[in-house]
Amino acid sequence: MRKLRHEEIPRLNADDLHKVKRHPITVLVDNVRSLYNVGAIFRTSDAALVEKLVLTGITGTPENHGLQKTALGAQETVPWSYEASALETLRALKRNGYTVAALEITTQPTLTTEMGAKAFPLCLIVGNELTGVQEELLALTDYALEIPLYGAKQSLNVAVAYGIAIFDIVRAYRHSAGLVQ
Amino acid sequence: MRKLRHEEIPRLNADDLHKVKRHPITVLVDNVRSLYNVGAIFRTSDAALVEKLVLTGITGTPENHGLQKTALGAQETVPWSYEASALETLRALKRNGYTVAALEITTQPTLTTEMGAKAFPLCLIVGNELTGVQEELLALTDYALEIPLYGAKQSLNVAVAYGIAIFDIVRAYRHSAGLVQ
Repeated sequence: MRKLRHEEIPRLNADDLHKVKRHPITVLVDNVRSLYNVGAIFRTSDAALVEKLVLTGITGTPENHGLQKTALGAQETVPWSYEASALETLRALKRNGYTVAALEITTQPTLTTEMGAKAFPLCLIVGNELTGVQEELLALTDYALEIPLYGAKQSLNVAVAYGIAIFDIVRAYRHSAGLVQ
Repeated sequence: MRKLRHEEIPRLNADDLHKVKRHPITVLVDNVRSLYNVGAIFRTSDAALVEKLVLTGITGTPENHGLQKTALGAQETVPWSYEASALETLRALKRNGYTVAALEITTQPTLTTEMGAKAFPLCLIVGNELTGVQEELLALTDYALEIPLYGAKQSLNVAVAYGIAIFDIVRAYRHSAGLVQ
């Protein structure tokens, strides 16, 4: 085997990006403090082809240099908006038929691999690095998604946890929709 | 549902950490430039309960403050060593019966979900942020693992890609070994 050269890797171009059918997942990025984490979440979201990122609360927006440093241009390829209130955003998504999943450790965990066809369209909530997903959002949540932690620590970096979760969710969606890979 | 309090989350304590049977995966972290990325890789490796991290080439080691900032103590809970030569390390692992997988986009991709029982014990190679896994290591590799990228960009952050890959690999190992979850 040999490595593919940059230009050999098939990817969407700017035109296709506006026409492609995105995975029916909106990600609510609420009160994420680190611009590096938000930038990494943008970069991962380009790869996962989610329909939208909604940045809420104190989560930084793409005009910040720190975010651009880790987003590496993905702030231009992933649809996004900023909304002050995560709660109002979530209520509106629910009115529009979205199921809600929070990346959070709770008394009723669901594995990221267990999402079936009825979970979509889905709003995935990612919360603050220290305090996690807000209680008022958790109260509106259908699934609390948990990544099994086998070691001595209680958590993962939020951008890493999001990466693991979103790729499992995209895989579950594509499987349920009969799409290859 | 409600969030679990910190002390309610079951985790290994310091004593158990030395007795527990770790997942038979050694991770070769070669020429990773960013200390933040190496720290995040430590934190994820605690959660994935890998047997060892081998840091090679220019990859920074845990005495660096930048690494500690993102490792959040995982440098104390994950066995690790530093070796100057990734190639010698890889040859020694192969002599000891390890299969080799590289996280790299090549002409012969394998999905991270496709690893079966015969792939273990496994050495997973993670390479430089810009140039990826070195050709001389790739030449000794059995599987080039690829994460499907559906967007306009050609890559993921290395710590995020590692997180996605290692949790898929751990899941595949546990499934092949008949362990729950």
